[in-house]
Amino acid sequence: MVSGFKATQPAVAVLALIVLLASFTMPIANPADPSPPDYALVIHGGAGVILRDKLDAETEQAYRTKLLEALETGREILAVGGSSLDAVEAVINLMEDSPLFNAGRGSVFTEAGKNEMDASIMTGHDLNAGAVAGVTTIKNPISAARRVMTHSKHVMLSRDGAEAFAADQGLEIVDPEYFRTERRWESYRKLKAKQESAAETEDTKHGTVGCVALDREGNIAAGTSTGGMTMKKWGRIGDSPVIGAGTYANNLTCGVSATGHGEFFIRNVVAHDISALMEYKGLALVAAADLVVKKKLVSQGATGGIVALDGEGNIAMSFNTPGMYRGFLKSNGEQSVFIFGDE
Amino acid sequence: MVSGFKATQPAVAVLALIVLLASFTMPIANPADPSPPDYALVIHGGAGVILRDKLDAETEQAYRTKLLEALETGREILAVGGSSLDAVEAVINLMEDSPLFNAGRGSVFTEAGKNEMDASIMTGHDLNAGAVAGVTTIKNPISAARRVMTHSKHVMLSRDGAEAFAADQGLEIVDPEYFRTERRWESYRKLKAKQESAAETEDTKHGTVGCVALDREGNIAAGTSTGGMTMKKWGRIGDSPVIGAGTYANNLTCGVSATGHGEFFIRNVVAHDISALMEYKGLALVAAADLVVKKKLVSQGATGGIVALDGEGNIAMSFNTPGMYRGFLKSNGEQSVFIFGDE
Repeated sequence: MVSGFKATQPAVAVLALIVLLASFTMPIANPADPSPPDYALVIHGGAGVILRDKLDAETEQAYRTKLLEALETGREILAVGGSSLDAVEAVINLMEDSPLFNAGRGSVFTEAGKNEMDASIMTGHDLNAGAVAGVTTIKNPISAARRVMTHSKHVMLSRDGAEAFAADQGLEIVDPEYFRTERRWESYRKLKAKQESAAETEDTKHGTVGCVALDREGNIAAGTSTGGMTMKKWGRIGDSPVIGAGTYANNLTCGVSATGHGEFFIRNVVAHDISALMEYKGLALVAAADLVVKKKLVSQGATGGIVALDGEGNIAMSFNTPGMYRGFLKSNGEQSVFIFGDE
Repeated sequence: MVSGFKATQPAVAVLALIVLLASFTMPIANPADPSPPDYALVIHGGAGVILRDKLDAETEQAYRTKLLEALETGREILAVGGSSLDAVEAVINLMEDSPLFNAGRGSVFTEAGKNEMDASIMTGHDLNAGAVAGVTTIKNPISAARRVMTHSKHVMLSRDGAEAFAADQGLEIVDPEYFRTERRWESYRKLKAKQESAAETEDTKHGTVGCVALDREGNIAAGTSTGGMTMKKWGRIGDSPVIGAGTYANNLTCGVSATGHGEFFIRNVVAHDISALMEYKGLALVAAADLVVKKKLVSQGATGGIVALDGEGNIAMSFNTPGMYRGFLKSNGEQSVFIFGDE
């Protein structure tokens, strides 16, 4: 295992370091244990035109380190019997707090130069769900989505209403300036000068973050958080806060979190479609995910990807873009993070 | 047929009147033509605790007349080869303009005493879709949803952003006062005094309106428009503007418009689930609709209903409440409107 060991001898430490480094590039760090894992977790940090020659070594390393940190955050909760819901929230909180991803701090800017965020969360044992749309002052939108699910009669709250609810619930409220990063502001400034939407530019990257977890109780939870589309206007809502499109969880089938060209993900009800293909057509998780992402979406010219897992701990990380920030772990020791499509 | 005839003799006129009256109570006005209809249309005006002894004769007649008028509006478009999209928009416009339904004029009030409306529309030949959420000044929200679909790159626009877009598109913008009706204001005032949400009151009625149409080209379109839940707060968004939950259309399977306790309809991805049961499990339309509405939703204590039709012009009007304002017509002459569950 990559973590949780103690190096009592230098040789062991060196060996462990080799395993750790190998885990960055090998699809599977350790051979799979044939029995289903007790718990599992899969994450994404956005899909898009992510190419080796466009990503400098330092930035690449920063992403890989943060993805591993996210996995570790989830493992610490799941290993001791914590719930998949807790794991999903904690993992996404970490990614929201990082300026690397288009969610929470580091969100892209709307046409009006604001950071407007969406998030949703769902639990597979009771099909409960919560979502917030167009929020600008909630430090961790995924935590607000969880509170909507557990502490309101509603599923989806929006804008200042969602913010008032989050404040009532004691969640951390921040100045909108908190979400601003120079990198995203630069990107916004350039697009604004050309009056283009990010969807029209070649370096499109759907930077949404997401996490799906299976806990020791066999319960699946899924969550997604995003800053949306650069230069979005008119109060545009993407797929991330839409249950069935950007997020879905059902213990009978799977949990899914999506990232991509949100409009197509809504029209194709992507997350629920993967679940329905499993439940009604008997497809395995990866077959269902690939059919939706690599066939249906591709036939419509829609870019993006999903991460998903089923009740057996099988993992799908399906995308039709050059790259997707992603990673997974299982209780049997398998763990890896990836960025590019060819690794 | 109920309409389109000319009574040239008194006897014919009397006969026609009998047929007209019979159409109010008989499930099917004319025996079914075994060949699939060239076009078909189905509507709802909300489901809920709608009981004979609570509805006075005059009000009942007003609903039946308006439902027949809605059907006739759709027939005029579909009969001459108009598109299912045009039919859906025109029919819903008529119902939005009527104060009888909780959509457009006649919408219920939010906790803050405002009318905030949601709508969505989808076309089954290209899986295109549009939606608006939380709009307060657009006279016909379903027309704004159509414009989002056809004249923007987005699927879902919200609040003032959606209103600015609608205004840009030349849609009719009205003073929020336009949507106010004394009946809904009275209902709001009473609930406000008790600080109860409509979901908690016994006379709960989900007054959303919806329409699904099949045109002569074989194309299906579906739309839904609503004033939401009385006393809603925190910018609550229900299922009506959520593609896959309140509205879905796919030429391969069916079109669906839902009305009910929106939170459960989102969590169950109701409209897409009915389509998926047909596409992946091979269920017929009515079986798929009944499974979702009368089994899955009932098992969760969720109230509401759906109207749907498939590419063969088969009709489903499935609900688990005492009543649902509803009606359908087919090109073969079948036409009927209903209110209560036992008719």
